[in-house]
Order: sequence, then C-alpha cells, then structure tokens
Amino acid sequence: MEKYREDFARDGSAGMPVAVVRAEHADQVQVAVRWAAEHRVPVVPRGAGSGLSGGSSAVDGGITISLDRMRAVEVDPASQVAIVEPGAFNVEVKRAAAEHGLWYPPDPSSFEICSIGGNLATNAGGLCCVKYGVTTDYVLGMDVVLADGTLVRLGGKQIKDVAGLSLLKLFVGSEGTLGIITRAVLRLIPAQVAGATLVSTFPTMTAASHAVVAIRGKVRASMLELMDNTSINAVEDWRSHGLDRSAGALLIAQSDAPGDACSAEIAIVRDCCEAAGADEVFTTTDPEEAALLVAGRRNTFHALEARGTVLFEDVGVPVPTLPALVDGIAEIARECGVEIALVAHAGDGNTHPVVVYDAADAASVAGARTAFDEVMALAIRLGGTITGEHGVGRAKRAALPDQVGPDVMALTRRIKAALDPDWILNPGAILPPTPS
Amino acid sequence: MEKYREDFARDGSAGMPVAVVRAEHADQVQVAVRWAAEHRVPVVPRGAGSGLSGGSSAVDGGITISLDRMRAVEVDPASQVAIVEPGAFNVEVKRAAAEHGLWYPPDPSSFEICSIGGNLATNAGGLCCVKYGVTTDYVLGMDVVLADGTLVRLGGKQIKDVAGLSLLKLFVGSEGTLGIITRAVLRLIPAQVAGATLVSTFPTMTAASHAVVAIRGKVRASMLELMDNTSINAVEDWRSHGLDRSAGALLIAQSDAPGDACSAEIAIVRDCCEAAGADEVFTTTDPEEAALLVAGRRNTFHALEARGTVLFEDVGVPVPTLPALVDGIAEIARECGVEIALVAHAGDGNTHPVVVYDAADAASVAGARTAFDEVMALAIRLGGTITGEHGVGRAKRAALPDQVGPDVMALTRRIKAALDPDWILNPGAILPPTPS
Ligand SMILES: Cc1cc2nc3c(=O)[nH]c(=O)nc-3n(C[C@H](O)[C@H](O)[C@H](O)COP(=O)(O)OP(=O)(O)OC[C@H]3O[C@@H](n4cnc5c(N)ncnc54)[C@H](O)[C@@H]3O)c2cc1C
Ligand SMILES: Cc1cc2nc3c(=O)[nH]c(=O)nc-3n(C[C@H](O)[C@H](O)[C@H](O)COP(=O)(O)OP(=O)(O)OC[C@H]3O[C@@H](n4cnc5c(N)ncnc54)[C@H](O)[C@@H]3O)c2cc1C
Repeated sequence: MEKYREDFARDGSAGMPVAVVRAEHADQVQVAVRWAAEHRVPVVPRGAGSGLSGGSSAVDGGITISLDRMRAVEVDPASQVAIVEPGAFNVEVKRAAAEHGLWYPPDPSSFEICSIGGNLATNAGGLCCVKYGVTTDYVLGMDVVLADGTLVRLGGKQIKDVAGLSLLKLFVGSEGTLGIITRAVLRLIPAQVAGATLVSTFPTMTAASHAVVAIRGKVRASMLELMDNTSINAVEDWRSHGLDRSAGALLIAQSDAPGDACSAEIAIVRDCCEAAGADEVFTTTDPEEAALLVAGRRNTFHALEARGTVLFEDVGVPVPTLPALVDGIAEIARECGVEIALVAHAGDGNTHPVVVYDAADAASVAGARTAFDEVMALAIRLGGTITGEHGVGRAKRAALPDQVGPDVMALTRRIKAALDPDWILNPGAILPPTPS
Repeated sequence: MEKYREDFARDGSAGMPVAVVRAEHADQVQVAVRWAAEHRVPVVPRGAGSGLSGGSSAVDGGITISLDRMRAVEVDPASQVAIVEPGAFNVEVKRAAAEHGLWYPPDPSSFEICSIGGNLATNAGGLCCVKYGVTTDYVLGMDVVLADGTLVRLGGKQIKDVAGLSLLKLFVGSEGTLGIITRAVLRLIPAQVAGATLVSTFPTMTAASHAVVAIRGKVRASMLELMDNTSINAVEDWRSHGLDRSAGALLIAQSDAPGDACSAEIAIVRDCCEAAGADEVFTTTDPEEAALLVAGRRNTFHALEARGTVLFEDVGVPVPTLPALVDGIAEIARECGVEIALVAHAGDGNTHPVVVYDAADAASVAGARTAFDEVMALAIRLGGTITGEHGVGRAKRAALPDQVGPDVMALTRRIKAALDPDWILNPGAILPPTPS
C-alpha cells in the first residue's frame, strides 16, 4: 500500500487510501469506479507514480486505482500506430515501435519509469518536443472510464478526425480529474535518423539562454537542453557523465536533419553559441558519446535528490524571455537564501528550477516555500505558465488561479461538474478537494 | 444579408436571420452575445463562409455574428507566433509570417478564402498536414467569448503549458457551438525549404492508393495528394493546369527534406510508385511548375462545382484501408447511379468524394443523397470517420451518432449543456437545434 501513496514529488499531500485496486482489465476499472460512484468515495488514478506535482497522491478514505498491471503494447505497423494499455512504460512503447522501424517521439526524462497513462493524463513533454511536439500531438484514440463507470471510446486509427467535439484532447492533460484512461491509440512515425550532438559551455546561464533564443530563430533543432553549474556538478557527483564541472552553463543541442543538412544545422548552432559568448563547443556523431551526455541531463533530478530535500519547479515562458526568467530565478534564490539548480527544455522556454533545501532547518524550509511561489509568480509576470509539462496536481493547485484568472477557473469547474458531478475523480488535483 | 446566409456547401439548411452583426472588436461580440443570451436568440458565428458542412448556415430568427471585419495580423518574430484576429484569412497569416522568414503550416485548399477563426473552429486540415499536422497543433492561445458573453483568455505565447484542463483544445474544432473565437496566438516555424515535387500517373485509384500506403511506411513526404480521372478532367475543363487527362489516377507528392535528403526521399517515392504499377513518373524542382500542379489539386472543388450540383464528402480511414475505401466508393457510385469524383489528402487517409448530380432530376437527387450516406457508412465500417477536416456542421449531424455511439453523444451533450445551457450557440451544428 505504502508505495502507492505518493508520487516522486513526495510533497506531503498524500493521505491514507482505504484500498488500492490494481486493475487488470478496463472492466475492473469500471467496476471499481461504479462502486466508488455509488458510495461517493474518492478515486485516484495512478500510473507509475513518477509524477512531480502530487497528482497521484492517495486521498484519505479514497481508493487508488493503479494501472500498473495493464501493460500490453501492440504495434500495427501498416497503420503506424501503437495500441497501448495505460500502465505500459513510455520506453516499452518506444521499444515495440522500434522493432518495426517506427518511433514514438514523446520522451520525458523519466521515459524509463513513467507510464503512457500518466503521460497522457499530464500531457507529458520531454527533450525532443522542441521539434516533435508533446504527448497530445501523438494521441489518435483513447478509451476513458468516466465518473459513473461508463467507458467511452474516442478516436481510433484514423489520423484526421473532426467528428464531434475534441473530447480526446480534453482528456489529455486532465490529470485524472475527468476520467481514467484504459487504452490509447498512439501515432508513430518513421524512426529518427541518427543525428549529431553539439555541447557548448558558457560562462553564465544568461549567455546560454541568449544562444537558445538565437538558435530557435534559425533552425529546428531536435534537442535544445540547458543545465546550470549546480546541476552539472550534482550529476557528476552522482555518477560521471563526462560533463565539464567548471562550466557556468551547458547547452546540449541535437540535429536529426537527414543527410548533409545535419552538419549544416550543427554549424548554425555552433555560430549562434559562439556569437552568444560560448567558452567551448564540442560536437560528436558518435551515438554512445551523445547518449552519455544526454543521460547526464536526464539524470539531473535523481542527482539533485541525492543532495538534499528538493522542490521541483516546471515554469515556462515565451522563449525570448528565457534570459529574464533565468536572471530572475537567480535573484529569488539569493533573496530566499536557498540553492536553486536549473535545468531546462530550453528550446521550448520550459525550465525546471529545483529548489534544494535543508528539511531539518525551519528557515530553509520557509525560504524554499517562498522561492517556489516566487518562481511561479515570476513566470506569470513574464507571460508564462506555472507548469509546462508536469501538471498542476496538488503542489500547484493554489497558484493556478493566479495564472488563469477567475473566469477560466469558473469554466474549469463547469466542465468538472458536468463530467464528475460528485467530484469523486482525483479530488484535490487541479481543483480543490470539494466543489465549494 | 443574403451573402451571410449560406456556406460553400449550399446544403439548403440556411434559415433567415433577424440580423447580421459584423463585429469590429471582441467587446462588440460580447455585447451581441449578451443580448442574445438575455433574449434566448440563436447565435451563428461566421468566418468567411467557405465551410463545406453548413456549419455557418444562418438560423431562422437568429443572429449571425460575422468576424469578417476583424482581420488584424501581428507577428512576433522573436516568439515565433502570430497574434491574429479571427476574420484574417489563412493566406494573410502565411504572408505576414513569410515577411519574417517564418511559416504558418496549416494549408486548407481554401487558404485564400477561409478565415483563421473558421480554421480553428473546424480544426482545418490541408495538404501539408501529412508531415506538419493540423490547425490544433499550431494553437498556443485563444480568446473565446462564451455563451453568457464572458471573454476567457486561454494559453499565450508560451509553447508548452499544461496549467489546468486543455480548454484551448476543446474549443478547437467545436464549430461555434461552445464559444466564439475573437483572437488567436498561432505558432510559427522557420520557413519551409523549397523542395521537390513528384507527379505519378496510375491506371487506377486502387493502384495509386497502394502506392500511398507504401510511401507512408518509408518517408515523411510533405505532401501526398490523389486525384481521380473525373477530377483531373474537371480541373482541366475549368482551366488548364497541365494535368494528364488520360490518367486513371494522379499522385502529387512533395518532399521538403533539406539538402541531399530531398532527392533521396523523392527517389524512394518514385520506387514505391513504380512498384505499385505507375504509368509515368515525373519530377520537378521548379517552384512555378510545382505550384501549377498543386493549384490543379486545390481547384478541384471549384472545377467540380462548375460541372453540376455537388455534395462534398470528407471521409477518412486508417491509411492501410485506403484502397478498400476507394473501391467501395466506386461501387457506391455504380449502385446509386451517380458520378463520384474523388480527391484525397491521401497520406492521411482523408478523402473527398464529391457526388455530382442533376438537381433537376428527382432520381438523381435521391441517388446522390443515398450515395452521400453510404459513403459515410462505409468509412465507419472501415474504422474511420465521417469527417476528417470539414466538420459535422448541419450536413453530417444525423450521421454523427452512427460513428461515435450513444455514450459519446451523451458526453458531448453534457459538455454542451455545461457551456451553453440555453443552447444558443450555433444550434443545429454537431447537435440537434434544441436540447431534446
Ligand atoms: C526523473 C524524472 C524526470 C522527469 N522528466 C519529465 C519530463 O521530461 N517531462 C515530463 O513531462 N515529465 C517528466 N517527469 C514527470 C513524470 O514522469 C510525468 O509527469 C509522467 O507523465 C507521469 O507518469 P506516471 O505514469 O508516473 O504517472 P503518475 O505519477 O502515476 O500520475 C500522474 C498523473 O496522471 C494521472 N494518471 C496516471 N495514470 C492515469 C490514467 N491511466 N488515467 C487517468 N489519469 C491517470 C494521475 O492521477 C496523476 O494526476 C519526470 C519525473 C521524474 C521522476
Ligand atoms: C475550395 C475549397 C477547398 C477546401 N479545402 C479544405 C481543406 O483542404 N481542408 C479543410 O480543412 N477545409 C477545406 N475547406 C473547407 C473550409 O474552407 C474550412 O472548413 C475552413 O476552415 C472554414 O473557414 P471559414 O472562415 O470559411 O469558416 P465558415 O465557413 O464561416 O465557418 C465554419 C465553421 O466555423 C465556425 N466559425 C467560424 N468562425 C468562427 C469563430 N471566430 N468562432 C467560433 N466559430 C467560428 C462556424 O460557425 C462554422 O461552424 C475547403 C473549402 C473550399 C470551398
């Protein structure tokens, strides 16, 4: 039971469920939801629990419906789709697709430990999104169990379909508050060509983010990630990935343009880096070397967690304001007296400031909470969002109205009430635990 | 008034409105909607009226709110977005983007005569969708006037944003039944590189569609369009575009892969065509020659309209079943004694059978109606959709439940009722004109 209570955020929001239902078929999900509806018992849908917003935190007296036993993946290569049960890990879909020369692009850093159901429910992003888009762009069909236990089948294997309202897209990103996803039809594309990787060091994150803005205006890189000095050193302390510990900032860019266009793109990226004041630029076409560097970026959260207690942020801004965001975050860290490590899916303007603090020190805890809130407020001021990909969950529920305002909140409640009138689905995520 | 009553489908569903409001600002839309809400008067939102499903047909006793005077387009090149008023034509957004070396991909054939508001409301597709996706993939933000006159602002210039429910995506494709779009923030990408065009003739549409299935498995062409012999000849009769009148089917493919990858992709496309039994294959990198050929495809609807009375179909199927769809449509034409011309965004499995009939002959009219319904039933049997991009509107309302079933219809009604309890927004589109 214990391991189904919290997600990776461990944000303290988890209660004690009366039961965990580990469903093996959609009809078991239906039975459980019907029972919960009848008894007005809260239902928390749960994938792999890698979420970073307390979205699958258990609710006191509720049931948690875990999808971790529903793992089947079937590829239809002719239609270029994967038909997937929600508990299947992202990496399992990628692997099954690869057997047919196909590719499922969305790639959260957690791709080896997160489920497709969770990806759909949070509209997960990742590293290749800067060129290939996010989870919602790859969903063609979904089965969803509604709050009364009805199962609806939306979409299918057809690529374009505008018959009726875009219900499919409404459930994507709904964080388990509108329905439970029990099956998905995912779009696949031909396998990505092996490309080239560029790594550039910069004296500061500000300089590096100026490079990102410039690159984006010129090429469609297939990866544009940033790490700051704290993140680099945390990763290197944790496990060596060959990153330069002295760098103020590290940019990892990839091009998967085919043929000679790849080196042409990499040359443009190099020019932008140099013009923005890069210290050293290094390129490679060796896949293993590239994989190690990217793994360094991917492992940042694990590495930072090993260093202390952390709060994961996920703010996003319009790309040109990235330098202002980076500078503002550094200032917040100073003012609040906490360390804020920074990694970013920079090409999309989506950053992950990670507040590292001492849980045993009350002043540090208070500083961390203030910093967490201040970073969100800054992103909103810069015309951005409190969450680019992790979701609102419970950790950011209080800040959502600040971003979207009362009218959008009212609209959100109307849709919630229409689909889940008794407020049993994941109460406390996105919206308060009770209607009023 | 007359020119605001019907859309391009001229499907006979149009009533007589009491007024047409040609709004110049969002607040005028709000005033009109508030008045309509108070008096329970139907409101039909209208863009450029190029729709093919009777979606903007006027309603007896209702008001039509035309957005044709709200045409401003502003490009923010640093953020790579266009901020657009709903009445701006698709081509105007493309042109404004091009001034900054940027590109707005979605390209319905009607791009010179349709509005962005209409594109958003129908989730319009087009020719480059096969590689670049549809309208919903390019929407970052929207202002929407709700049924009570409230204006909500959704999203913004940030590329990734998962704060709250995916309301933005719900309004895309809602065909004016949930709200009126008064402003949009559209994502732009760097300008497309000039590519190469391949034209291949085939003895039959069946052979050509087998080629399409094969091509899709191997490369991501940036265009994969089909025309049948009837369409080719209609276009050539209308205005010469240099198409081969003797061809049983014509495939137009493009690659915009950069550098030497372009000719490599075109070579693969050629191989697939030849393996599928192509008669002649012709390639060109001359942009003017390519533009003329593509214009031929784009002008098919106008050309067919010049020939007689028409019913526009828009069915889509999983790509591998394209040959079965093509064969089935030919059979329906024979059985119903009507001519069905066929063009297709074939790479997405989205076809436009156009039923050409004699409006003065009762038997021909009856045959056309039967054929229209039979084609939709066939698409549903093949696991596809009654509409891939044109929308349900009024023309396909009766067929929608056959595709999605009673539970999805019930869900659709719940959302409609939550957002438009008095059923004043575009009554009769997607759902019946009254709640019961
Ligand atoms: C090291 C690390 C790196 C990460 N990197 C990224 C990244 O790059 N990009 C990114 O987007 N995220 C990232 N994440 C966050 C997380 O992995 C994603 O949010 C992921 O999509 C969650 O999937 P999950 O299966 O673990 O879901 P859970 O944590 O179990 O649940 C997440 C939410 O989805 C709901 N849910 C889960 N399954 C279903 C279902 N079947 N039906 C309905 N609702 C459901 C839950 O109720 C909850 O609200 C990272 C996390 C870690 C630990
Ligand atoms: C020759 C020809 C070729 C075509 N080719 C394609 C194609 O390739 N792909 C494709 O997808 N379509 C195509 N179409 C169909 C049509 O052009 C599209 O559906 C287009 O998106 C409609 O835009 P419009 O401005 O003309 O909208 P309208 O016809 O005015 O309205 C269409 C629908 O949108 C609603 N609407 C319009 N504006 C708003 C708004 N601001 N807020 C809320 N609702 C609104 C209306 O109520 C209606 O339901 C073609 C049409 C023609 C005539």
